[in-house]
Amino acid sequence: MTTSIGQSIPRIDAAAKVTGETRYAADIQLPRMTHAKVLRAPWGHARIVRIDVSRAAAHPGVLLAVTGRDLGVEREPTARHRAILAVDRVVFFGQPVAAVVASDPHVAEEALALIDVEYEPLPAVIDPMAALAEDAPLVRRSAQELDLEEQGAHSASDTGPMTTSAKPSNVVAQVEFNRGDVAQGFAEADVVIEDTYRIAKVHQGYIEPHATVADCDRFGNVTVWTTTQGPFMARQNIAAVLGLPETKLNVVGTEVGGGFGAKNILLAPLCARLAQRLLRPVKLVLSRSEDLKSALPAAPCVVEIKTGIKRDGTLTAIEARAVFAAGAFPGAPMPAGTLLLGACYKFPNLHIRGYEVLTHQVSVGAYRAPGATQVAFAIEQQMDRLAEAIGMDPLELRLLNAVEEGYPQPNGQPWQPIGLKECLLALRDHPAWASRQVGVPGRGTGIAVGGWGGGLQPSSASVRLNADGTAGVIVGSADITGTNTVMVQIATEALGLPIEDVKLITGDTDTAPWAGTSGGSKIVYTLGNAVKQASEDARAQLLAIAGDMMDASPDDLEIVGREIRVKGSPDRSIPVRKATSESVAIRTKYSPVLGSGTVPMRRQAPGFTVQLATVEVDPMTGFVKLTEYVAVQDVGKAINPMAVEGQIQGGVTQSIGYGLLEEMMYDEYGRLRNPSLLDYRQPTAVDVPDIDAVLVEVPSPDGPHGARGVGEPSIIPAPAAIANAIAAATGVRLYETPMNPERVWRALNRNGGVERQE
Amino acid sequence: MTTSIGQSIPRIDAAAKVTGETRYAADIQLPRMTHAKVLRAPWGHARIVRIDVSRAAAHPGVLLAVTGRDLGVEREPTARHRAILAVDRVVFFGQPVAAVVASDPHVAEEALALIDVEYEPLPAVIDPMAALAEDAPLVRRSAQELDLEEQGAHSASDTGPMTTSAKPSNVVAQVEFNRGDVAQGFAEADVVIEDTYRIAKVHQGYIEPHATVADCDRFGNVTVWTTTQGPFMARQNIAAVLGLPETKLNVVGTEVGGGFGAKNILLAPLCARLAQRLLRPVKLVLSRSEDLKSALPAAPCVVEIKTGIKRDGTLTAIEARAVFAAGAFPGAPMPAGTLLLGACYKFPNLHIRGYEVLTHQVSVGAYRAPGATQVAFAIEQQMDRLAEAIGMDPLELRLLNAVEEGYPQPNGQPWQPIGLKECLLALRDHPAWASRQVGVPGRGTGIAVGGWGGGLQPSSASVRLNADGTAGVIVGSADITGTNTVMVQIATEALGLPIEDVKLITGDTDTAPWAGTSGGSKIVYTLGNAVKQASEDARAQLLAIAGDMMDASPDDLEIVGREIRVKGSPDRSIPVRKATSESVAIRTKYSPVLGSGTVPMRRQAPGFTVQLATVEVDPMTGFVKLTEYVAVQDVGKAINPMAVEGQIQGGVTQSIGYGLLEEMMYDEYGRLRNPSLLDYRQPTAVDVPDIDAVLVEVPSPDGPHGARGVGEPSIIPAPAAIANAIAAATGVRLYETPMNPERVWRALNRNGGVERQE
Repeated sequence: MTTSIGQSIPRIDAAAKVTGETRYAADIQLPRMTHAKVLRAPWGHARIVRIDVSRAAAHPGVLLAVTGRDLGVEREPTARHRAILAVDRVVFFGQPVAAVVASDPHVAEEALALIDVEYEPLPAVIDPMAALAEDAPLVRRSAQELDLEEQGAHSASDTGPMTTSAKPSNVVAQVEFNRGDVAQGFAEADVVIEDTYRIAKVHQGYIEPHATVADCDRFGNVTVWTTTQGPFMARQNIAAVLGLPETKLNVVGTEVGGGFGAKNILLAPLCARLAQRLLRPVKLVLSRSEDLKSALPAAPCVVEIKTGIKRDGTLTAIEARAVFAAGAFPGAPMPAGTLLLGACYKFPNLHIRGYEVLTHQVSVGAYRAPGATQVAFAIEQQMDRLAEAIGMDPLELRLLNAVEEGYPQPNGQPWQPIGLKECLLALRDHPAWASRQVGVPGRGTGIAVGGWGGGLQPSSASVRLNADGTAGVIVGSADITGTNTVMVQIATEALGLPIEDVKLITGDTDTAPWAGTSGGSKIVYTLGNAVKQASEDARAQLLAIAGDMMDASPDDLEIVGREIRVKGSPDRSIPVRKATSESVAIRTKYSPVLGSGTVPMRRQAPGFTVQLATVEVDPMTGFVKLTEYVAVQDVGKAINPMAVEGQIQGGVTQSIGYGLLEEMMYDEYGRLRNPSLLDYRQPTAVDVPDIDAVLVEVPSPDGPHGARGVGEPSIIPAPAAIANAIAAATGVRLYETPMNPERVWRALNRNGGVERQE
Repeated sequence: MTTSIGQSIPRIDAAAKVTGETRYAADIQLPRMTHAKVLRAPWGHARIVRIDVSRAAAHPGVLLAVTGRDLGVEREPTARHRAILAVDRVVFFGQPVAAVVASDPHVAEEALALIDVEYEPLPAVIDPMAALAEDAPLVRRSAQELDLEEQGAHSASDTGPMTTSAKPSNVVAQVEFNRGDVAQGFAEADVVIEDTYRIAKVHQGYIEPHATVADCDRFGNVTVWTTTQGPFMARQNIAAVLGLPETKLNVVGTEVGGGFGAKNILLAPLCARLAQRLLRPVKLVLSRSEDLKSALPAAPCVVEIKTGIKRDGTLTAIEARAVFAAGAFPGAPMPAGTLLLGACYKFPNLHIRGYEVLTHQVSVGAYRAPGATQVAFAIEQQMDRLAEAIGMDPLELRLLNAVEEGYPQPNGQPWQPIGLKECLLALRDHPAWASRQVGVPGRGTGIAVGGWGGGLQPSSASVRLNADGTAGVIVGSADITGTNTVMVQIATEALGLPIEDVKLITGDTDTAPWAGTSGGSKIVYTLGNAVKQASEDARAQLLAIAGDMMDASPDDLEIVGREIRVKGSPDRSIPVRKATSESVAIRTKYSPVLGSGTVPMRRQAPGFTVQLATVEVDPMTGFVKLTEYVAVQDVGKAINPMAVEGQIQGGVTQSIGYGLLEEMMYDEYGRLRNPSLLDYRQPTAVDVPDIDAVLVEVPSPDGPHGARGVGEPSIIPAPAAIANAIAAATGVRLYETPMNPERVWRALNRNGGVERQE
């Protein structure tokens, strides 16, 4: 049998998706369904002087109208998912303050207008650096311990102890990494470069806004259908908010129409609370505008960075500070981002601090390689500036200083086997770099590196053989990137069955084996091993049965097509279905084949990418046109090359939007000024050139077939690569995203071409 | 912790059932639902001269109207579930001949009247003995191999090779058992008694008629929600009928509102075919009358029996012939019934033959202890007649001749450890027997034995620990008798957790571990072991994690309440939830707890019961009033005594109906004359006295905690025990069921009081 590993199998869900057969949470129809709508805060920071839902409650067709107090919400919840509805004070624009449920969604919407709320606007803090100030308006008034779990959901890197303030402060977490003697390092440097970089708050841009349906029976059993990347994590958190044991809550992870880190838990606790009150199903679907206002975008970040280098290209020191703004609740990917700031190159001396600050903005979630894109914008431009300062080729400088297996990360932990150098070497030979045009005014090529530590979480899976010899692979993970297709490939390979005989089944949290959250590029890496183990277990059980039936040692058997054969004796064979049907027969001495896999995962498999952008900059308008894009990535092993290439192309597209187009814009009151896709500019087909995805395969020691996570790295480098390309094209460097025409034009026309923050 | 084994835990589904929260198949509502209705044959046997559905198809609101030809059904399917709609000929009254689907069920019903069918009635054979005749009208015209699987679904007894006819015949299967020399045995006998017993065709009398919903997506994936005792068996059979691999069919076993053997597969293939045509959900729910006409009742049976005995009570020989009428398709429990006819007592010489014949009646299914009630009516009256003839106490005669461990069954296989004698001894000491009144005219006490071989089928189950330390037990079996509650008890005991922390989850055939059909009293016996094994596996995984966390050997740990403790060091403990939450954490060295159980079951655990009935017979009306009822049963181990007693009381109630009240009455054309509960008389509360269930516990070697299956035996003895009681009360013996007032009155007033078949 030909192996299916390394084959570009089309996604198993492709046909259902393109034909509209796929059902999303918003498509769910249940008997007695009701519809909830949410009234949202019109200020970034305000006191709720008075709130009265009585007129809404009395509106014909309305079944329920509630405030946070009605639902018993705490005044200052420790995590966003506990802040079901605001109590007394709103801390971000778009925060839910009341909810209405009606049998018709339009009636619910209508009734929102009947809720009387009187606000007293309060001073808001928006800028991350301003939030650091001692006298900044405080987002939280108490200093109790916050729930920082979200930060761990994607990156599994150990970032050491986080310190939190003992007294009320907007700084909710700090990390610090030290190595060597930074002062000494700068003293040894021939060149020291210092600057500040800013990356804007952006939205993940998934197609499907957040949506949840919840139901509750009269015995308090709650079912939640929701678009989530982590059904089990959602269950754990929702159960905790509702005060239920996990046995009383079933989470059905519906198809995720794009998540990119933002789809863990948002509406579900509110929706479940409403269902508990009504004992009827409640549907809560956000409009695009509500999603932009209130969902969980990426954290904006300011990086102050100082680096030293010798003329021969040896790096001597880095001193840096990264300030991530979390919005009104903690959740910024500060630890992982701060770690990565000093992780990709060999700095003998290092002092890096990270701060997570609260602001009066919507709280952030994860966004694909959370934290990494932000810091890459700083360090990857800094590397180009250092190369320029010592007159070295920027790729050669990176190659000279690139970390490799065994080199310590800022946290002291040595890198596992990685393919950073292999990616740099592959790009060095790529015509887009090797034959790039230099010295053409307005045209330039830039490169940048992206590194991602890699997610970890243990996983489990079941593989069952059916009576007719086909197989079911049962998982509890959300497929956000095509992982289900890869699981079928892994199971097919391990079982030795035809791929069309293997069915991937996603269970809910009641029925499925426990699986981690689909985030941090970890599903193939972790769950893939559980599926492999479960499949191997199932195959061993099958061959034991067949061996007994055929009077042969299981070790002497092989599966070819749908036959089990004695190796070397092709005439001694039985159909697989004969063994499987016998395994479940009434009078049999065998038992059903139930393969089990539950795997710990203890080592990360970091993923690196090097990307190249060629741009043409129009000096009249500041418009940056991308003419060429290459993404070289170490994927360990491309189990499904087409799927891997798709992941890379998608990540690059988002990274381009991050760099050139996207910014959530807030006014001084914390009001989002562009809560629609008319004003919030995402990349479209005309913004993105063909992306050449080049796969490098440096096998990971622990991944199935050597695979590494591939989802994350591709989104990291584009803002930096494009900035480096703009600098190469124009001699002008951009320190802030998005590098839209206005900002580029201003940079080209001010202060000798160097734009600093306004 | 107190053990939960042996505790009378209330059924976990009780509250949902009594409050109406439980959802049955007929309660399912799906978007775009359609409704099917079936046109049924008005004759037991007829040629379809012409059938035209065009007027029905054109009726407003009708989406589809089809005949068997339209669906490509074979002319003479080999099994009832393949006979989706009749083609050319109908072979039983109520057989589906056409189906209409409409968006409204009433419209579909209405359109049935627009189907034009012309029938040519043909001679029908109804009586089992008449069907044996060479010149009887044939039910089948071809002699191809029939699907006899149904017969195996309940009894796992090996009844040897079945012979089938090579030429068309109504006899579709025969078995024969021989031991010793029967002629010699009768020669040695002091008394030989010979007679014929007849037991009527009865319906299982479940509350919920058959119901199915089926859907099909545009990729051909079919989902079937159906009231079935065996979701996996249903999947296997439906997939075969539809020509689908099992990966393309998911069966969701809905709550079974009573099955008793009749709910395996009936409507689902038709319903699925209609859904495949429409690509919309189709609901098909039978009315009570349709169910009585067309579902799968118990086989009527005629037993000719001749037995010999010595004056000292030694049995010498049995010669018998049992003829089971299967209706128009095979499925009668002939092999198991024939075996049991000679299995409970020590007959040194034995010759027993069994015949399964087809008749022009609805085809039968299983009915609780299928075949056993029929033959017990004969052999248990025969035992009383032998006792009377030699002047011995009927209980003592049974005790003297009762089989025990090691004695061969008619098939030669020795009995496993059984509790028949222990039950007889317990009844001997019971006041109802020990102090029974003798010699009061019109009042009498009778006893009878019931034996059941016990079902076998391998099973599998999963047990998962949740992050919060609670547990999920995942099974794929239908709970028709309270088995889910017992599974929770078994898992609780094995895990060592509080019972309220253990949730029973029933998966569908996609997600659940494979489980056998709930029939033959086998779920606790077989699946109970799988749940126990999976729970023990989960506990071992948990303790391995905890041991590592606590630096202790897992062998030194115990679980008390929700704590894991080092034995003897109560201060060294961690909460269970600490280990389980750590097992799924982002940065953990452990892995999720996923316990697996998959068990072969190779030995039956036979179950015996001895029952006592006391009756008062009104000589004026023939009315038999049951005044006292005792059921002594060997249950191996009553894991949940209340549930076991409930099983016994329910079985006895059905057995009483079988004996006194129930009969499906057919005219000469095979038309059912009483297809409604007004005319088909089931027992009600006024027909049934308090039933004293006495539990005997002779542990089975292989069952969980020694348990045996308990569902089946209780339905076996009542017709015989009541007949024996009537004989004791009146001196008149009844040879035919039901022993309703008319039949009893006629017996009391004819031929010196002995009624023979009319």
